[in-house]
Amino acid sequence: MRVLGIDPGLTRCGLGVVEGAPGRPPALVDVGVARTPSELDTARRLVQLETAVEEWVQRHRPEVVAVERVFAQHNVHTVMGTAQAAGVAMLVAARHGIPVVLHTPSEVKAAVTGSGRADKSQVGLMVARILRLDEPPKPADAADAVALAIAHVWRGAAINRYAEAVAAHRTSRPRTPTSRRAS
Amino acid sequence: MRVLGIDPGLTRCGLGVVEGAPGRPPALVDVGVARTPSELDTARRLVQLETAVEEWVQRHRPEVVAVERVFAQHNVHTVMGTAQAAGVAMLVAARHGIPVVLHTPSEVKAAVTGSGRADKSQVGLMVARILRLDEPPKPADAADAVALAIAHVWRGAAINRYAEAVAAHRTSRPRTPTSRRAS
Repeated sequence: MRVLGIDPGLTRCGLGVVEGAPGRPPALVDVGVARTPSELDTARRLVQLETAVEEWVQRHRPEVVAVERVFAQHNVHTVMGTAQAAGVAMLVAARHGIPVVLHTPSEVKAAVTGSGRADKSQVGLMVARILRLDEPPKPADAADAVALAIAHVWRGAAINRYAEAVAAHRTSRPRTPTSRRAS
Repeated sequence: MRVLGIDPGLTRCGLGVVEGAPGRPPALVDVGVARTPSELDTARRLVQLETAVEEWVQRHRPEVVAVERVFAQHNVHTVMGTAQAAGVAMLVAARHGIPVVLHTPSEVKAAVTGSGRADKSQVGLMVARILRLDEPPKPADAADAVALAIAHVWRGAAINRYAEAVAAHRTSRPRTPTSRRAS
């Protein structure tokens, strides 16, 4: 499964592509950051961001786009721009028919560090360790985008394993009207 | 000046086109509402909204797009969707090279009713009166979009009159190095 993780933002938007499959360590395909100049008005910054996300989607053809979920209670001064950047990322993915999933920052932190309250440096270190990189991707937004993609690969893997287990169970013990089970 | 006003939203996005010039009553060109189904995920709702705004921009070729400014402290449950809908509207306008202006709800209410704290029905009534309609555009989101466009036409007119006054003043009293004035 190839996942594009996006840590949305107008000033810096983190982008990370990871490839992985159940039971195998994920591999880094690409990582970077899209910046838009703060002198520009928001509308034109959104256009530049759209172009950048479009390029990443075209270049890497991800099967899923994972975007960080933005909360209204976060920093009031930047949250609107962040929400709009997330909206543009979601729009571009959906236009290509690519499923969009949202993950909260604490879900992502818990997935890669084991703690939903890990700090940015811990996330960066674990991203480097998981992908066998010499050092964390920089800036932090890039590392966060990769962490999002890893979290989704692993979450997806868990869902797949569950589905396989259910399918195996069904095959070995066929459900018939005379053998209904609660499980 | 032809202005497209947009009251952003995922469930209902108000759209209103008004034409006006300084010193003349504005005229309604078109008004409506774009809806996206709540069963759909946000990403695909944003794609549908993009299509709708794109159609309005292509059909009416506005010189300015006026969008209601969304605040983080508003209804926490819907504000993210509203911000993303606003972002998509701004994106579509900017992609066409059309200037985007943001007006706060109280600026718009003050422009059409004289009070920044007017309620929705008052705004609707004044929109109908200003445009000489038999009744307010419905739903309220459509009336709000038209109010935004009227507010921008009038604000723009005020700015134009100010610019003309300044220009006239400069012409009649040329500024030279020996006649510097504080004004």
